[in-house]
Amino acid sequence: MKTLQRRIVEEGKVLSGSFVKLDSFLDQHPDSDLMSDIGIEFYSRFKDRKINKILTLEDSGIAVAMVTGVSFGAPVVFAKRNKTMNVDPRCFKSRIFSYVKKIEYDVVVQRDSLRPGDHVLVVGDFISSGNAIKGLLDIIEQSGASLAGVGIVVEKTFQNGGNELREMGLKFESLTRIKSITDLGITFED
Amino acid sequence: MKTLQRRIVEEGKVLSGSFVKLDSFLDQHPDSDLMSDIGIEFYSRFKDRKINKILTLEDSGIAVAMVTGVSFGAPVVFAKRNKTMNVDPRCFKSRIFSYVKKIEYDVVVQRDSLRPGDHVLVVGDFISSGNAIKGLLDIIEQSGASLAGVGIVVEKTFQNGGNELREMGLKFESLTRIKSITDLGITFED
Repeated sequence: MKTLQRRIVEEGKVLSGSFVKLDSFLDQHPDSDLMSDIGIEFYSRFKDRKINKILTLEDSGIAVAMVTGVSFGAPVVFAKRNKTMNVDPRCFKSRIFSYVKKIEYDVVVQRDSLRPGDHVLVVGDFISSGNAIKGLLDIIEQSGASLAGVGIVVEKTFQNGGNELREMGLKFESLTRIKSITDLGITFED
Repeated sequence: MKTLQRRIVEEGKVLSGSFVKLDSFLDQHPDSDLMSDIGIEFYSRFKDRKINKILTLEDSGIAVAMVTGVSFGAPVVFAKRNKTMNVDPRCFKSRIFSYVKKIEYDVVVQRDSLRPGDHVLVVGDFISSGNAIKGLLDIIEQSGASLAGVGIVVEKTFQNGGNELREMGLKFESLTRIKSITDLGITFED
């Protein structure tokens, strides 16, 4: 998506440690037209996959998942970060190591939200190490639902999450692929 | 919205203390078609107000705000709960007492997200005491932007938030109005 790439270059705020903040149009302050285009783009890339549910990790994934759900006419499921020591037995859970925050945490999804027979598209705003996404795939497997694919808005190819998912043989699509983030700027894969 | 009322009756889980959970179609597991209709309904109720921004409180408001933003073709601004003692000076802040959690917390919005000349629609999933919404109105006032109105999916009329906003003379619209929540069930205003 060329528009997305242009907005990243023009508005992205580069932080130390190869992070880029896209608050002004994606995370804190989403541009509805762009978000709507993102939902339509995911639909065009996954429409042959009989998708009936969209799964994301709150809270950064909610906006992307919502516009994608609208494009598919499919309900959205939010995986939550578990904030207590105990996990509700009515939930599936998976333990994730956050590359960004350097901590481990559990993500949980209510058991009645995912069922055998569901075809689930996982979406998110960013992928770097891919740990959060792998946690969601683990939960889908526990539920007996099928994974239809993974769609990510921004892939950082200098970290390995996207490639690891591709190597697992699943359908993985990212809308823009960042090759490097330095103080000199952001470069993209061709 | 009759569909919304029907789903609340059929799927709402009544909890003690006059709470109802609407996870299965609104909060944890939003139904995209219904959410899309909610966005369109807010558009039809506020379309004469020259709205150019949608403001909500994360994370429960994100999905509603996103579909509303798409309906208006307007960007969405997320107010965040401030989790540290210090507030970033680049933010507007307002202190809120949470009726549900019985705690005080600050909500913050980045200063460059709201500007004089903006016409802002505030949206949210629920209103009970209205404290969270009043915090957002306070932030709009600090920013010099204009409040175009407040749109809420579910109003609990047995608490006073909605009526207080109406009495302030602002345009307040709720899509369904719950009169009472008891173990015997949920009743609605006519």
